[in-house]
Amino acid sequence: MIKKNYKDVASKQATLLDGTEVKGVSVRWLIDKNDGAKYYAMRRFEVKPGAGVPLHGHPEDHEVFILKGNAKFYNDTGQEEIVNEGDVLYIPPNEKHGIENLGQEKLIFICCIPYL
Amino acid sequence: MIKKNYKDVASKQATLLDGTEVKGVSVRWLIDKNDGAKYYAMRRFEVKPGAGVPLHGHPEDHEVFILKGNAKFYNDTGQEEIVNEGDVLYIPPNEKHGIENLGQEKLIFICCIPYL
Repeated sequence: MIKKNYKDVASKQATLLDGTEVKGVSVRWLIDKNDGAKYYAMRRFEVKPGAGVPLHGHPEDHEVFILKGNAKFYNDTGQEEIVNEGDVLYIPPNEKHGIENLGQEKLIFICCIPYL
Repeated sequence: MIKKNYKDVASKQATLLDGTEVKGVSVRWLIDKNDGAKYYAMRRFEVKPGAGVPLHGHPEDHEVFILKGNAKFYNDTGQEEIVNEGDVLYIPPNEKHGIENLGQEKLIFICCIPYL
């Protein structure tokens, strides 16, 4: 068993899979391969007011739990979902998705991703 | 993309894998196979004051994020970890683990589990 606090984990500049930096977005890989996790990882994201994640896709799905904030999650089929604390999102494999922080506060969420 | 609030998901009596009911513990399967998730599921647990989960094990690992409360997570090697909001736990495959809610309030946490 490994225990840590999210603050013990280094906060890093978020990047897309091609290495592009996502301005105003930081990520902590709370539990990942370095902890021995083989199947999936758990991350905690912070998105500054006015910032977001551009539309992008990948074969990994996401399971998201909103801890704080007010944001729009959207995809490339025109679906837009407004989320707040306690909301949950499932983004299937290969569905292109993006995020906009709509609030005056940080958007904070847990986002899991599988190791495929 | 599927969006819901955790409150939209039915809260069920928690059980161990052998079907034993775990008194005072409820679970919402926030994202699971019914949503199309193939690799892992995200659950949200509530443990009443004085309640807990007895020591048990299984091949699936757990990635846990504490949302609220004060509790002890323990295993069968004598390791005990006191956790509070913002703490994170990784419980490896087959490591027997148990939980005691130590607080006067509900213990609430996110717990992911893979589909093996």
